[in-house]
Amino acid sequence: MIKARIIVTLKNGVLDPQGKAIEGALGGLGFSGVGSVRQGKVFDVELEDSDRAKAEAALKEMCERLLANTVIEDYSIAIT
Amino acid sequence: MIKARIIVTLKNGVLDPQGKAIEGALGGLGFSGVGSVRQGKVFDVELEDSDRAKAEAALKEMCERLLANTVIEDYSIAIT
Repeated sequence: MIKARIIVTLKNGVLDPQGKAIEGALGGLGFSGVGSVRQGKVFDVELEDSDRAKAEAALKEMCERLLANTVIEDYSIAIT
Repeated sequence: MIKARIIVTLKNGVLDPQGKAIEGALGGLGFSGVGSVRQGKVFDVELEDSDRAKAEAALKEMCERLLANTVIEDYSIAIT
């Protein structure tokens, strides 16, 4: 069993309307000094295989084909 | 300037329909051996203040009041 955490975030320069909405909401709740907020996704994936190299390759392909829109998003894979 | 990464995930035992949908989609794309997928949110926050203790307190309150639904979600704060 291999456990991995995948984090998908918007590339720098890509506008983040959700992040902007959260910035506004935090301001409305009275939080001052919030420079910026960028929202992304995190996936905790469990793979039955225990071959680390095969798992890394499969996880990378999962990101490329489904979990991340690689045109506007970056992803990082951490096997725990 | 302080930068922090907040990760919000569903508590263990809470059903994750999005995660289940992704498991199905991965299976449909031909990925075998996917045990489970749990999806969460990540927030990259920049605070203008440079007082670490004050920042930690503010970030914790942001999670408690807005970024996480603490009934069903856990959150972690990492100041980078």
